[in-house]
Amino acid sequence: MSTVTSGDQPLPSSLLDRLAAVLGPRGILTGTADVEPYLADWRALYHGRTPCVLRPASTAELAELVKLCAAAGVPLVPQGGNTSMVGGATPDEGGRQVVVSLARMNRVRDIDPLDMTMTAEAGVIVKAAQEAAESAGCLFPLSFGGEGTATVGGVLSTNAGGNTTVRYGNARELMLGLEVVLPDGQVWNGLRRLRKDNTGYALRHLFVGAEGTLGFITAAVLRLFPRARETEVAFCAVRDEDAALALFRRFRDRDEAAVRAFEYMSGTGVGLYRTQIEGGNVPLDGADHYVLVDLASSRPDAGLRTLLEAVLEEALEAGEVLDAAVAESEAQRAAIWRIREEHPEAQKREGASVKNDVSVPVSRTPELMRRSSAALRALIPGSRPVPFGHLGDGNIHMNLQQPPEMDPAAFLARSHDIMDAVNEIVRDLGGSFSAEHGIGRLKTDMMEGWRGGAELDVMRRVKAALDPAGLMNPGKVLP
Amino acid sequence: MSTVTSGDQPLPSSLLDRLAAVLGPRGILTGTADVEPYLADWRALYHGRTPCVLRPASTAELAELVKLCAAAGVPLVPQGGNTSMVGGATPDEGGRQVVVSLARMNRVRDIDPLDMTMTAEAGVIVKAAQEAAESAGCLFPLSFGGEGTATVGGVLSTNAGGNTTVRYGNARELMLGLEVVLPDGQVWNGLRRLRKDNTGYALRHLFVGAEGTLGFITAAVLRLFPRARETEVAFCAVRDEDAALALFRRFRDRDEAAVRAFEYMSGTGVGLYRTQIEGGNVPLDGADHYVLVDLASSRPDAGLRTLLEAVLEEALEAGEVLDAAVAESEAQRAAIWRIREEHPEAQKREGASVKNDVSVPVSRTPELMRRSSAALRALIPGSRPVPFGHLGDGNIHMNLQQPPEMDPAAFLARSHDIMDAVNEIVRDLGGSFSAEHGIGRLKTDMMEGWRGGAELDVMRRVKAALDPAGLMNPGKVLP
Repeated sequence: MSTVTSGDQPLPSSLLDRLAAVLGPRGILTGTADVEPYLADWRALYHGRTPCVLRPASTAELAELVKLCAAAGVPLVPQGGNTSMVGGATPDEGGRQVVVSLARMNRVRDIDPLDMTMTAEAGVIVKAAQEAAESAGCLFPLSFGGEGTATVGGVLSTNAGGNTTVRYGNARELMLGLEVVLPDGQVWNGLRRLRKDNTGYALRHLFVGAEGTLGFITAAVLRLFPRARETEVAFCAVRDEDAALALFRRFRDRDEAAVRAFEYMSGTGVGLYRTQIEGGNVPLDGADHYVLVDLASSRPDAGLRTLLEAVLEEALEAGEVLDAAVAESEAQRAAIWRIREEHPEAQKREGASVKNDVSVPVSRTPELMRRSSAALRALIPGSRPVPFGHLGDGNIHMNLQQPPEMDPAAFLARSHDIMDAVNEIVRDLGGSFSAEHGIGRLKTDMMEGWRGGAELDVMRRVKAALDPAGLMNPGKVLP
Repeated sequence: MSTVTSGDQPLPSSLLDRLAAVLGPRGILTGTADVEPYLADWRALYHGRTPCVLRPASTAELAELVKLCAAAGVPLVPQGGNTSMVGGATPDEGGRQVVVSLARMNRVRDIDPLDMTMTAEAGVIVKAAQEAAESAGCLFPLSFGGEGTATVGGVLSTNAGGNTTVRYGNARELMLGLEVVLPDGQVWNGLRRLRKDNTGYALRHLFVGAEGTLGFITAAVLRLFPRARETEVAFCAVRDEDAALALFRRFRDRDEAAVRAFEYMSGTGVGLYRTQIEGGNVPLDGADHYVLVDLASSRPDAGLRTLLEAVLEEALEAGEVLDAAVAESEAQRAAIWRIREEHPEAQKREGASVKNDVSVPVSRTPELMRRSSAALRALIPGSRPVPFGHLGDGNIHMNLQQPPEMDPAAFLARSHDIMDAVNEIVRDLGGSFSAEHGIGRLKTDMMEGWRGGAELDVMRRVKAALDPAGLMNPGKVLP
């Protein structure tokens, strides 16, 4: 989407010297090859430039560098695992924006299985946080495709969702407290591990989802949960989109606390998995609509199999479920999840695709999928809608695969038309143009149309109040 | 705590005329007797004055009155059910602050049992919201003593907690979207009913808990849940504070989703219930420490009785539980809950008491209760600590009852010493000086000491950005 320009604008040597004194030799990267991995986003939509990459090892170092850069008017771009889907963590092409990587701040400071909390630094990888929780006998439930690379700071800054939001909430709901370095270098220690704390404005919620435009999240107190002692996973062929929703409702009404994930997949998407992924076996082939149900409970005697079979039987009788495969082992559970998890990779191998991370009220998901699919097929004849994802949250990734014969570049040139076509329907259904990926750079130009008026006015006032010089992640979130 | 001064400063008649044109005859109260109920807070800590009480019937009327008052520089005090525990909803003694009651905006605009959402106006009473949800076959779980008077706008503005926070979260976590009239009269319609929506700063979280200092919450989209189909309630005599916590941990680890409430009561508090409340029977008399356990599930076959008995048996064997009474009927469940719910009334009848709404990490609740009780007894010999409340949230109401022979006024004159003594321990345990009641007017002078520095600095900048003239609920929250 943007061109690479060579060269950059180095920082004044006096500032570099001061930064070096604070950060030490491991803390500053300036070589072209060294900074390269920090310049392009994961989807390769953008490729920016930077004078250098700063890698503080502690909150104190970060606070010091922010003060120095603020005094010099240097704009900063926070970066965690660099897995943003919307170009939220990479610098622009101007060559002035300094990337600040939180990767070295990767300590789990504390785990308390009685308080059910973990205090983790921003650079802790989500997978590592999961493992740390597990080794303390607990569960950190946030889970999504990028969990092996994404960091705690990143998922909080984007308010990541993922597969288990339906049960445990998104990143915001898993956060009790934050430590933040403000745009002027002040450190706010809000690492409280309290379930109830009504003492003024909820600043922590302002930084979550702000995508680094209001300051650096440097550490967080995260909520933990008891581990699952019973799990059941089923892969179901369902009649249509309405049947998928009806099945979700049946499970939720029976035991909403047991529904850990409820993921929709289309016949097209499952077909791509079968043809593009090695060993891509599918238990129930040939249907147009599928659902993955994942039930879990910390009760060892939860009776989830009974619950699962009872609900599936009702839904079979009602004609909603056509057929269902219930996993009988951990390997089978993993195999079913793999169908869902490999959707992005299968789409990638099949050719070009355009991603739409949208949400609607749960009740409108069937209409979203049907209307969007029709609109997209009409927009680009031969294109293949691949809706999939978190039906239980109303968050369907309404993706579109290129027509087999079409030139990928020509298809991608229609990206904005494709997003617009979906968004028009999303708006009509009372939905959102960004469910869990955020705004970053990709969707800033949609903010005026969707959040304009009073809402954007307040956002701008908040931004100006916290970051009057506009040095924190400029060009992201706000148009 | 403050004296009543007579008279008030009437609004200019031109402004009154304009307000009358917008609000109609039912929308403005000016008579002394008419405004009186709006001037004193529920705990009778304060008694203020006001030129008039405005009672808009719609968001449009409210927006219009805010514009008129903003232009005239008239400060406004939002009021819902007027059940604030910290004087957050009453005007000061200056006679300039106009009370704006949201009581007439009391429509449930929409209930959707498929989306599991309710859109309710600010003036809807919490109890009415619960009943509306129930009649749609759903549960609105927020529940606390004042639910028959408190309003949706009020509980969101204070981020109320209550008995079921341990399972369903506080008011904030039950809120998906808001409609807000901003201090300049702009209306922000953020009534989205989306589980995932990452589109810029989370403004809704800024207004929740802001106690009306950033604008008026006029309506909200609230989350609903499936109704409980199985419930179990037990009243347990436990060995000591540690045993109470150990019992909580046993239930939580077994099935955290089943624990709807876990309430601690002291022998002193239960004794006051027995002596002060008509029909105040207590199943297990004579212990020093009690716990109320409330389990619930939407599963009709959840087997909660089995779970309850298994856990109690383990805890009996471990010596944590001394004896337990399990309710066998709805009447018995209500009778057990009544012991807990009548604590405030029993305390009131016994004489003067000072309330401490504090929270600590759950793991520190035994230490909080033990150390505070000792400190309070030392501070005022003969005084009786009555700790009770939401142990599962770390939120213990660390209340103190006057010595039987002491003059109530002399005891209440020590209020600040009492609060300070508790707060010193709370601070040492990493807790908060306001768990669920908020700051209001009562605790503004504690903000500097507890939230001073970067945090209060950011709060002040946010306040100035949204309400530069300082007309929204002046004197509340921020010192």
